[in-house]
Amino acid sequence: MTPLFARLTIAGVGLVGGSLAAAVRAAGLVGEVVGFGRTEANLRLAEERGLADRVTRDPAAAVAGADAIVLATPVGTCAALAAAFRPHARAGALLTDVGSVKQTLVAELEAAWGGVGPVVGAHPIAGSEASGAGAARADLFRGRRCILTPTPATDRAALARVRALWEGVGARVEEMPPAVHDELLARVSHLPHLLAYALVAAVGEQTIAGRRALDYAGTGFRDTTRVAASPAELWCDIALANAPALGAALGEFRAALDRLERLVGARDAAGLAAALAAARALRGRLRGEE
Amino acid sequence: MTPLFARLTIAGVGLVGGSLAAAVRAAGLVGEVVGFGRTEANLRLAEERGLADRVTRDPAAAVAGADAIVLATPVGTCAALAAAFRPHARAGALLTDVGSVKQTLVAELEAAWGGVGPVVGAHPIAGSEASGAGAARADLFRGRRCILTPTPATDRAALARVRALWEGVGARVEEMPPAVHDELLARVSHLPHLLAYALVAAVGEQTIAGRRALDYAGTGFRDTTRVAASPAELWCDIALANAPALGAALGEFRAALDRLERLVGARDAAGLAAALAAARALRGRLRGEE
Repeated sequence: MTPLFARLTIAGVGLVGGSLAAAVRAAGLVGEVVGFGRTEANLRLAEERGLADRVTRDPAAAVAGADAIVLATPVGTCAALAAAFRPHARAGALLTDVGSVKQTLVAELEAAWGGVGPVVGAHPIAGSEASGAGAARADLFRGRRCILTPTPATDRAALARVRALWEGVGARVEEMPPAVHDELLARVSHLPHLLAYALVAAVGEQTIAGRRALDYAGTGFRDTTRVAASPAELWCDIALANAPALGAALGEFRAALDRLERLVGARDAAGLAAALAAARALRGRLRGEE
Repeated sequence: MTPLFARLTIAGVGLVGGSLAAAVRAAGLVGEVVGFGRTEANLRLAEERGLADRVTRDPAAAVAGADAIVLATPVGTCAALAAAFRPHARAGALLTDVGSVKQTLVAELEAAWGGVGPVVGAHPIAGSEASGAGAARADLFRGRRCILTPTPATDRAALARVRALWEGVGARVEEMPPAVHDELLARVSHLPHLLAYALVAAVGEQTIAGRRALDYAGTGFRDTTRVAASPAELWCDIALANAPALGAALGEFRAALDRLERLVGARDAAGLAAALAAARALRGRLRGEE
């Protein structure tokens, strides 16, 4: 079988980039996988774990001869990284990413990569609060959604190759405009992250009668705040890049919380029970997705 | 070994009550365990699973000859249940509970049980969103905290017996005033539950460009909202019974959320990254608790 790409460069061999590297190698989709990163320790770990064929901290060596480059670094760093790679990239090299925001990022990448080759925005909805090459695993994307966000500028052949890459590692690929992606993800991902960080910030240093509140947290608090263990840099970038949609989602959340608080304040047992039961029923629709 | 109680009645053989029944039998702490409940189907399931020695829907049969009665039903139902048991209880019978709120509940139980026997408030911090006898398991309390909330009226010998009961099923027992318990649990349990229900209520019916937002939820949304799969009746009761402390906790949460939102609005990358990193560090203190 002819590989999809003779040489694929993955910038950022952490949880997502490292997992993609391992997955494409395991699936035999790519001739050679080159891992690029900033920190020597993580690259060495990626090498030890055999995630990539070779690793480097040098942008020129990283992209020399690559057919395609995947940016798997925090979204705030992607445009600068594309600019750093550009002088060393070969003509026609495909640029794609795995960012959790798409509208601003894809526009930035299209601008940065103009004249070099095609740009395809992608976002695999997979991950955890863990980070680094140590958390990477080849089956991370199996059965998960991967959203591709073509724009009017997107080359259709390049789009098909990126689709084949993600389908090849087991993802369920879907296409939608970048703005639609960002509105959806603001609700189901960016908002929950902000709430989790806010909950920890509100409770984390509280003491009541000399007792530290966190010491009394059970599994409920632990799960509700799990995503607040995610890298702060990553989620800072995402929140800023998707600020308008996140702001709208926050407004919707505040309205829902205000409604519950009003019912508590009014001691409206029937109204509160009905509202909680309705929310519980909605959450029941998540079941069986995995 | 002389059992702690010759006959223990557990009202509500669901996740917590059923687990306690199974645990005390497994540990040989009690001569006989009687399970009381409202619904025939759950009682039959409890019987099939061997959680209790016998089960009944009749309040008189449930408490006849019992040394102690554990109320493991939603907190809003406990006082009425105590009143229903009272005419059939033997003199000196100990009344305790497992409620997630203590101040109002313990006062109600002390009033309802006055003249019958001692009352001891207890709250094992263990559980999940699951409910019913099918979810019960004998090891639910192992290594978990159980908070006892004595008042000036609490009989010290009864308190010691309830402590022995919970220590006997593996819990780490601690005592504090009911009001302190309620302030702590408002932060680490009642608030997270309300937020999870509000998040599902806000997102659950959203569609963006014809796409249902919930369909794009990943593990982050799933974990953040897991507790919103908890029974609505249970959490309605808890929120209403602990409304003042929950209101204070909500105020603290809103302040933390407002702060993060202001940083996003101001596009203050350094400030936002620092705030998220601080929250992440606080959450790190939860690690290794289990």
